[in-house]
Amino acid sequence: MNKALLAVSAALALSLPASAQEEPKGAPAPSEIVAAAPAGDWMAIPAEDLLVMTLAPDAEGKPRQVVIQLMPAPFSQGWVHNIRLFARSGWYDGISVNRVQDNYVTQWGDPNYDNPEAAGEPKPLPEGLKVMEEAEYVASRSQGVPCGPDVIDPAMCNGISERLLANLVARDALGQAAFWDGWQVNQDSMQGMWPVHCYGMVGVGRNYSPDTGSGAELYTVIGHAPRHLDRNIALVGRVIEGMQHLSSLPRGSGALGFYTAEEAAKRTPILSVRVASDLAASEQPAFEYLSTESTTFATYAEAIANRRDPFFIVPAGGADICNIRVPVRRAE
Amino acid sequence: MNKALLAVSAALALSLPASAQEEPKGAPAPSEIVAAAPAGDWMAIPAEDLLVMTLAPDAEGKPRQVVIQLMPAPFSQGWVHNIRLFARSGWYDGISVNRVQDNYVTQWGDPNYDNPEAAGEPKPLPEGLKVMEEAEYVASRSQGVPCGPDVIDPAMCNGISERLLANLVARDALGQAAFWDGWQVNQDSMQGMWPVHCYGMVGVGRNYSPDTGSGAELYTVIGHAPRHLDRNIALVGRVIEGMQHLSSLPRGSGALGFYTAEEAAKRTPILSVRVASDLAASEQPAFEYLSTESTTFATYAEAIANRRDPFFIVPAGGADICNIRVPVRRAE
Repeated sequence: MNKALLAVSAALALSLPASAQEEPKGAPAPSEIVAAAPAGDWMAIPAEDLLVMTLAPDAEGKPRQVVIQLMPAPFSQGWVHNIRLFARSGWYDGISVNRVQDNYVTQWGDPNYDNPEAAGEPKPLPEGLKVMEEAEYVASRSQGVPCGPDVIDPAMCNGISERLLANLVARDALGQAAFWDGWQVNQDSMQGMWPVHCYGMVGVGRNYSPDTGSGAELYTVIGHAPRHLDRNIALVGRVIEGMQHLSSLPRGSGALGFYTAEEAAKRTPILSVRVASDLAASEQPAFEYLSTESTTFATYAEAIANRRDPFFIVPAGGADICNIRVPVRRAE
Repeated sequence: MNKALLAVSAALALSLPASAQEEPKGAPAPSEIVAAAPAGDWMAIPAEDLLVMTLAPDAEGKPRQVVIQLMPAPFSQGWVHNIRLFARSGWYDGISVNRVQDNYVTQWGDPNYDNPEAAGEPKPLPEGLKVMEEAEYVASRSQGVPCGPDVIDPAMCNGISERLLANLVARDALGQAAFWDGWQVNQDSMQGMWPVHCYGMVGVGRNYSPDTGSGAELYTVIGHAPRHLDRNIALVGRVIEGMQHLSSLPRGSGALGFYTAEEAAKRTPILSVRVASDLAASEQPAFEYLSTESTTFATYAEAIANRRDPFFIVPAGGADICNIRVPVRRAE
């Protein structure tokens, strides 16, 4: 029973002992469709877009590394510029995880910033930071054509918009969901397009409007997508490896999940944050994502919306944009 | 900056130090609407519907208790019967959390069941368990009238269906979302209504169809709602207190997030599970939920779909059913 629950592939289900119920035949699972993708469907992620964040080792002394993929143009490029600047100036080294709110966010930054119980002075910010306008939470559609239901030329999306999005993703609760160069986005023919707050997305903490945040304070989503934050905060990337090091941290007992002064020992130290392209070639991690313009991706998304692999009895007939995660893997 | 990010109420935001940006005026936050609800909008949860699950103390020796609210009729009553039977026979005492898969589920049961690396024999099941049919994943609408867009008599829902659901919840990706006696559900005029896999919901592990599970193996959702499981697995309740004790556990490194044999020490022991009504009166926890048929709830849901409290600049214009969590609190 336990091994079969929520089985994600035939190969995994077959790891059941011989005495257990045998797996019936069925359509391939989404993970099997991805595993069978031709090599040409995988797109390399530039090393300039990868942040390597090293946390202090865990209680057993095991290393903890988190890799974040930064968003490409046209999204949030001012903040992305700042984040590379913070990383390259070493500003992030020595900050900590200060907030973990269940079913919401894990947030890291300078523990002495805006903190009435601060143990020390806030870190001075580096020079050269850009100040962003709220209008930049949304990107102009003139900068790109997402594969969505109102795409101008469906052929550009390899048939995805015609045979999939109109029925499935377009039923998203909050907008016309679409995929753009490997990212889950929403779009609006009037306003443009914007990234959405799915699990693992990374955003920029800010104060009240018109402040838009610098990138000194970052968070990632560790629960059900808080879509009310879309277009209200800058999203800058997503965690593509090591998410469990941020999602399984002890929750803070202070307001909004901040660790209280008594819980200061629970703050996880961040030892360093590096742009991968600055590392020695032998230390650079390499990742790739499944092209969201590929036929494989369309087949994968359709299979998520209508699970017909052996465990399932009733296909859902649709899927939330945040359940159609873009596959990302280590490159060989 | 960090204290203000994602502020949920004026009271919390005002805990900012004097030097920080002052909070602008705005509409009340959803949490403030709930805090102002009249006493009559709160409905007592029967003690017979509360399970008190005591985990082994944490690494610091602190107690860990989880309270689960079981679903009322007409949902999943065969499984709920079994779960009370498991609890009352003491069968759950001594089992453990065996699986934690990031952005998916935490699962508990007998670690020796269906486990090729088992350290011992599986526990024999108690007598008197019901065997359920798959048809019972869906409840007949003749057993209740949910407050949804195609409700027969909108007046029964205190105006919710007219002024809220048609525009907001009905835009749910996967069905006609609605609320029923304090629960988030989906409905279909042909088939009936069924609970949905939101964060914190508790379900029954099973093997391949036609097995439907007994209730010996349970899980809770710790990530973005896996709605493809709706109508494919029995949902039996939700975690209403202590969720962090299940969501922040270390992830398993085996297939599907199971702890491997080498990680056996990570399995969290479950010391006991009791039906609250069986406890001494002085030890019985008491909880209440905000009536989903109340005007307060309609106002609260509308405020979630259109955040106008001070932090927000663009209201979303809608909300996913899983983001409209039914408020539950300790009764005084």
